[in-house]
Amino acid sequence: MLAVASMAFLVAYAVRVLATGLPQAALDLCLAVTMAAWALFAVDYAVRWRLSGQGRRFVRRHVLDTVVLLLPLLRPLRIVKAYEAIQRRHGQPRLPLHGRVMAYSGLSTLLLGFTGALAVFQQERDAPGTTMPTFGDAVWWTCATLTTVGYGDVAPVTPLGRLIAVGVMMIGLALLAAVTGTFASWLLQVFAREDDERPPGS
Amino acid sequence: MLAVASMAFLVAYAVRVLATGLPQAALDLCLAVTMAAWALFAVDYAVRWRLSGQGRRFVRRHVLDTVVLLLPLLRPLRIVKAYEAIQRRHGQPRLPLHGRVMAYSGLSTLLLGFTGALAVFQQERDAPGTTMPTFGDAVWWTCATLTTVGYGDVAPVTPLGRLIAVGVMMIGLALLAAVTGTFASWLLQVFAREDDERPPGS
Amino acid sequence: MLAVASMAFLVAYAVRVLATGLPQAALDLCLAVTMAAWALFAVDYAVRWRLSGQGRRFVRRHVLDTVVLLLPLLRPLRIVKAYEAIQRRHGQPRLPLHGRVMAYSGLSTLLLGFTGALAVFQQERDAPGTTMPTFGDAVWWTCATLTTVGYGDVAPVTPLGRLIAVGVMMIGLALLAAVTGTFASWLLQVFAREDDERPPGS
Amino acid sequence: MLAVASMAFLVAYAVRVLATGLPQAALDLCLAVTMAAWALFAVDYAVRWRLSGQGRRFVRRHVLDTVVLLLPLLRPLRIVKAYEAIQRRHGQPRLPLHGRVMAYSGLSTLLLGFTGALAVFQQERDAPGTTMPTFGDAVWWTCATLTTVGYGDVAPVTPLGRLIAVGVMMIGLALLAAVTGTFASWLLQVFAREDDERPPGS
Repeated sequence: MLAVASMAFLVAYAVRVLATGLPQAALDLCLAVTMAAWALFAVDYAVRWRLSGQGRRFVRRHVLDTVVLLLPLLRPLRIVKAYEAIQRRHGQPRLPLHGRVMAYSGLSTLLLGFTGALAVFQQERDAPGTTMPTFGDAVWWTCATLTTVGYGDVAPVTPLGRLIAVGVMMIGLALLAAVTGTFASWLLQVFAREDDERPPGS
Repeated sequence: MLAVASMAFLVAYAVRVLATGLPQAALDLCLAVTMAAWALFAVDYAVRWRLSGQGRRFVRRHVLDTVVLLLPLLRPLRIVKAYEAIQRRHGQPRLPLHGRVMAYSGLSTLLLGFTGALAVFQQERDAPGTTMPTFGDAVWWTCATLTTVGYGDVAPVTPLGRLIAVGVMMIGLALLAAVTGTFASWLLQVFAREDDERPPGS
Repeated sequence: MLAVASMAFLVAYAVRVLATGLPQAALDLCLAVTMAAWALFAVDYAVRWRLSGQGRRFVRRHVLDTVVLLLPLLRPLRIVKAYEAIQRRHGQPRLPLHGRVMAYSGLSTLLLGFTGALAVFQQERDAPGTTMPTFGDAVWWTCATLTTVGYGDVAPVTPLGRLIAVGVMMIGLALLAAVTGTFASWLLQVFAREDDERPPGS
Repeated sequence: MLAVASMAFLVAYAVRVLATGLPQAALDLCLAVTMAAWALFAVDYAVRWRLSGQGRRFVRRHVLDTVVLLLPLLRPLRIVKAYEAIQRRHGQPRLPLHGRVMAYSGLSTLLLGFTGALAVFQQERDAPGTTMPTFGDAVWWTCATLTTVGYGDVAPVTPLGRLIAVGVMMIGLALLAAVTGTFASWLLQVFAREDDERPPGS
């Protein structure tokens, strides 16, 4: 349910940013969907807070939910959770643990990267001296940032755009850590298994 | 056999992109070789599919083969497989496991990087406002991208060139993960061995 | 006590660099606070040296303290120590070990990054051909450097600014290593736990 | 002995590249020292080859020596070996294993980075459209490359300079892997020790 709202939020936000040629009514509809999704999250958060009867400790224990409530652009992370739930329902997870970590990292990065590109593009599009006049430029910039390559041929120039860009950089750092860490631990497991199989005298 | 076809594909593609001064007949020959290699892969894929009698599950189980069929530029990965097979035939692998992981990573990166440089160069060469007029520039850009340094003095500007560039970036991320992960697990093995050798009281 | 002096040092330094519009008296006050904090550190260092009665070995054993004395901009690291002490006083640390490593890495990076941005900004602000006329540009440059993205749209041009910038790059390298290493070891622990829980025959 | 020759090689090469204001005789002397050091290495290599009586296998078994002979700029690596030998002579190594890995990585990176900066500077200094007119620019470029930040405000433009630059990038990749890998394995050891100390019921 919340995953659907997340998806609706993301789609409506994307349409509002990208489809500037739409009539005003459609844009208003998108804004309404965005707001409604946000309100739904707020209500869900409030209800769970009340039901838990934990007072302030609820906020501390659900840091991720609180952050997502305040920073709606992180909301697509919810979709990853839903994806996980769906996979569970179809019986055993098909991928081993390493594969699952990679799949979730990839999916999260994809969703957050797309959202980040949208948000930065919204800020930068009409800024004087902008380097990303089209959404394609914004996506290109996002890819170069997420892999920590950072060419610099396209880069945000507005303060708000740069603030969001720092968030995208951090996601890139996390992606790098996830890929490297997963590979390292996978390699260690392979080595451990090979050691077991080999006769000890060799 | 398929490795030879891969190699022929790569060489013919490289000649077609780089040797623009050749007579038309030679270029046509290269194109023909490229197409023949692709067709060979398609036939091989189809035959194996039929023989397996698995229907749709074959596609899911041979993801890499399917991807390579659709994205022919990934085909050089086949050469790595052939290299592995040749080494096996010469008796025991000479390198320990860490060395083998590094050798395969290096060889894959080299082949894919070269193919990526070719593909990006083909797209960018004649684009207006291009930053890579010569193939040397394209190779330089590829090296800076694969190591995630990314100077930005040379960078693709066409949409298709940038799409391929994102693929090159991902290979760079994978290379980084492979180098770091291999080193970390090698270090851990060295430490574990040293712990065993040292008397426990020290 | 020393942490308070560190904080005073950092705040006074920040005010002196950023608030150029202040009357001369206020700037002098900031300089005085900076110098006083430095003197306090020197006295503390000297007293501890005397009391230890170790002579030269003291310098070798307290490398960090010596470096911090000579490079006052690294002093904010003291605040991290104080933060740790405060957390200890409040009973058990709430975070598990991985979380603590991440928290300390993050806090150190934040403080050192802010200090580095201040120091580089002080050098670069009025340099001819500068690319960071405002402090916002300096912070943006610092973020792009700490994540090793490095766009290059903003970059120091003075020798002293570049020297400090190399220090910031090294902090970025350390941050990358800390994030990746923590994730890899966390993942390995998760895998080890899962292996234990699963019946051995599966 | 060979380490002294390496050091002499490095110093003479640095003087020849940097001190262009020297009289011709001094430059000739530097060239002579460089050549003599190279010749010494070649003789040492030849003598060891003969004495080993291994024929071609010697080349395969001493890959590093062969590479260093052909690429004299990698020779400073010899100094690291000498540093290790000196430390051993002073009794037990003072640093634990992780510290030693970091020290050797740092020393190698410092020496190779300095040599790389010299070599790239020699190629780029007088190239048309150069971005590194002074040696300070070359050092700045080297630092930005070794940390894989890569601003791109300074970048080589000549083919030979770029070839050497690719080598510097690879050293940067190796440094990143060494730092990250060392941190990850150190963290894992700390966690393992903490697990041992804690009572198993907690």
